[in-house]
Amino acid sequence: MAKVKKAPRPKAETPKGFRDYFGAEVTERTHMLQKIAGVYHHYGFEALESSAVETVEALGKFLPDVDRPNEGVFAWQEFDENDKGAWMALRYDLTAPLARVYAQHRNELPTPYRRFAMGPVWRNEKPGPGRFRQFYQCDADTVGTASMAADAEICAMLSDTLETVGIPRGDYLVRVNNRKVMNGVLEVMGLGDDQAARDNVLRTIDKFDKVGEAGVRELLTKGRLDASGAFIDGVGLSEDQAEPVIAFLTSKAADVAKTFDNLRGAVGTSSVGAEGISELEQIAELLDAGGYGADRIEIDPSIVRGLGYYTGPVYEAELTFEIFDEKGRKRQFGSVAGGGRYDDLVKRFTGQAVPATGVSIGVDRLLAALREKGRLTSTSVGPVVVTVMDRDRMADYQAMVSELRNAGIRAEVYLGNPKNFGNQLKYADKRNSPVAVIEGGDEKDRGVVQIKDLILGAQIAESATLEEWKERPSQFEVPRDQLVAKVREILEGQAD
Amino acid sequence: MAKVKKAPRPKAETPKGFRDYFGAEVTERTHMLQKIAGVYHHYGFEALESSAVETVEALGKFLPDVDRPNEGVFAWQEFDENDKGAWMALRYDLTAPLARVYAQHRNELPTPYRRFAMGPVWRNEKPGPGRFRQFYQCDADTVGTASMAADAEICAMLSDTLETVGIPRGDYLVRVNNRKVMNGVLEVMGLGDDQAARDNVLRTIDKFDKVGEAGVRELLTKGRLDASGAFIDGVGLSEDQAEPVIAFLTSKAADVAKTFDNLRGAVGTSSVGAEGISELEQIAELLDAGGYGADRIEIDPSIVRGLGYYTGPVYEAELTFEIFDEKGRKRQFGSVAGGGRYDDLVKRFTGQAVPATGVSIGVDRLLAALREKGRLTSTSVGPVVVTVMDRDRMADYQAMVSELRNAGIRAEVYLGNPKNFGNQLKYADKRNSPVAVIEGGDEKDRGVVQIKDLILGAQIAESATLEEWKERPSQFEVPRDQLVAKVREILEGQAD
Repeated sequence: MAKVKKAPRPKAETPKGFRDYFGAEVTERTHMLQKIAGVYHHYGFEALESSAVETVEALGKFLPDVDRPNEGVFAWQEFDENDKGAWMALRYDLTAPLARVYAQHRNELPTPYRRFAMGPVWRNEKPGPGRFRQFYQCDADTVGTASMAADAEICAMLSDTLETVGIPRGDYLVRVNNRKVMNGVLEVMGLGDDQAARDNVLRTIDKFDKVGEAGVRELLTKGRLDASGAFIDGVGLSEDQAEPVIAFLTSKAADVAKTFDNLRGAVGTSSVGAEGISELEQIAELLDAGGYGADRIEIDPSIVRGLGYYTGPVYEAELTFEIFDEKGRKRQFGSVAGGGRYDDLVKRFTGQAVPATGVSIGVDRLLAALREKGRLTSTSVGPVVVTVMDRDRMADYQAMVSELRNAGIRAEVYLGNPKNFGNQLKYADKRNSPVAVIEGGDEKDRGVVQIKDLILGAQIAESATLEEWKERPSQFEVPRDQLVAKVREILEGQAD
Repeated sequence: MAKVKKAPRPKAETPKGFRDYFGAEVTERTHMLQKIAGVYHHYGFEALESSAVETVEALGKFLPDVDRPNEGVFAWQEFDENDKGAWMALRYDLTAPLARVYAQHRNELPTPYRRFAMGPVWRNEKPGPGRFRQFYQCDADTVGTASMAADAEICAMLSDTLETVGIPRGDYLVRVNNRKVMNGVLEVMGLGDDQAARDNVLRTIDKFDKVGEAGVRELLTKGRLDASGAFIDGVGLSEDQAEPVIAFLTSKAADVAKTFDNLRGAVGTSSVGAEGISELEQIAELLDAGGYGADRIEIDPSIVRGLGYYTGPVYEAELTFEIFDEKGRKRQFGSVAGGGRYDDLVKRFTGQAVPATGVSIGVDRLLAALREKGRLTSTSVGPVVVTVMDRDRMADYQAMVSELRNAGIRAEVYLGNPKNFGNQLKYADKRNSPVAVIEGGDEKDRGVVQIKDLILGAQIAESATLEEWKERPSQFEVPRDQLVAKVREILEGQAD
């Protein structure tokens, strides 16, 4: 046997593409997820927490001709007493596990099954700035019903959710489209079966927001010079073939009835197109009955949604307010959630088609938006710090902390080396503490404590003139038995 | 190249040793974790969420002489454009990641650093009944202080936490011991350097609860016949050598001062033993100052705690009420949390010893205890179900659901195939719905709705006589505009 070498000192590093979250970053996310869970639950959805680990087989990422799962997931092979076993992997989203769970437990679950799930997912991708290999998703799906009422409900719930977490009406829009309408357009173009051409057209539609009607027309036909002067190859359609796409993309009208008229023009005689329009009409009617107007949810034929597995309605929530990007340019915040109907995911397991529809909220993007708007309610105010003037009287300080905590005040005693009092105040500063409590031997003898308003102290240190300083002392001496009352008074003053 | 075969239909199964959590299982745990986080935060601890994935090197499970990490963790090797890269693994606890995080970020973090963390951890072990390979932990640790005030604080916080989640005083006990006292005992026994003998003695001490004083004496010396008639080999000590262990184990007295006297007798001249006793005395004094009496936290020399990395105080929270085990025998519920001081974990990374102490709560055991005591506040009451009598009037039902939701009532419309009304009531039953709403064409014409009290209905179906049935109808017809008021009245009645 090889000799065991002494291991070198390990590096203290997160693996590439992973990060840690500290303090308010964690609690803000937790609070937001709580609020979202509240709305989902209110709508009748039930929580589901599936295991983070799935078989690669169940995830559907397994390539049958190679020994190793493809890239994109973190995967490993089970070892079972010298025998290699099944490949397992970390989930890469919450939809694939839902399909597995529903197929596995369908006899015990209610049908339709409304479920919500929130938690981390993992992607084995090249990390980049701001792109991490572990991030949160927050999904709600309804499995087992083809009714458009399920899709309409999820759009309404998405609207309610955004308002509940702090995005006011007017700052967001849920936009709804239907893959069948697009398929109808492709059918009348004669591209019903040409997958490559279909994909090219869908990709072009997705650029409508950026390049406009004329740009899309060029991209669908002969190609286009972009702003940088580079030539982008066209899809190669004739002008006539491109016409239904243009009609489709420009079909949105101020009046939803007129939008539907335009769409009917775009899909012509296609029956799948007509079916898609009818589905959108049902959704619009149901949302109207629920009181969700076009200021919250609108039919918008330019929404594509990338994922190949959508089969009917697709929807997307966009934040409509402007922010400045990293280059200082104004731009819209963009999409924070999206989803749609997918009817074939459960079929992979059972052979039977099970209709389903659902939404996924991009938790980190939504948090960034709330931060941008100053709408995060949790604060990063630290605890009251009871300083240690005399290390032999730790029990006295401990008693003070207990009193403060019992009175509902977040508090702690300084636990570092108490020798250097300056370090204690630096610690309180690093903790963002609002108040420090001081009791030296002299104060102890006189039955008093010193209470320091650290927020006011910092303000005075920064800006106040000597006159103001005299008028508003930031340190108070109070009888020991008024400790809790005075600390509370200061905290309440700071909160105003 | 090998031909790509058509993949067989995947099995819908959780990987071996993993499970899914549904509905109330998820929300009950979430609520409990929220409450625990609240107490930890109140004590000045800050949230930390480290990545679920760590380098195997940082986790400290890497064997340098083999190509593959040892068992116990789920690990895989990074692939970086055909080059094999670092081994990565899922965290197996929350302490190893804390050591890595502290070593990595120590210049930005306050010292001492109080942090709490909660989340799943993964163990690559053979699964067994009730033993899963993914489970939750909920930890609080203070890093960077050798002060016994940190240990005392965590014991006090553990006591507060148990009461906050619903374990009343008297139903639990936090017991505190110190490794140094045990080391002192081993030293006076002449086993200071004999690791194997020390481990044997510690293992024997751990059996004190079961076999008592005479049993431990036999196990330390010549061996013992157990209840089943099997002979258990002894450690092989002489009667004299065993004496300090017995003195140590039986040192607990009704009066804590007397306990300390007994411990002083047991460690004799050992200086590490004396240091351990002094540390326990400091903890006892601080807890006393905080108002934590022996009804909540006590010094108990029989606590061992398995983990090898503890270096000073160790503590454990035990639930003291009795339950019936799977064989119908009465037994104490046992331990739900434990921890202690570990001074060497950060040193692995930095070379400098960083004193630390912390506790881990076994979330699933604590949940099981609360369930046992009927103390889980979240209920599994389902939503109000608005049934569908006429599928063309989905918008009418949608409007009802919106009204109910806007009034703060959890509600949903039935989204399955509405053809068979019996299936709709079965669905409501499966969902544990308290109320069903019914509006057929006739009701619609008369401007009324039917409201069915499903809880009362079930009670009547089960037990009531015809007379009672007549007196308390479980179905009511009310004007449409009284829908919300009547549903609320029924829900309030059910909650009483």
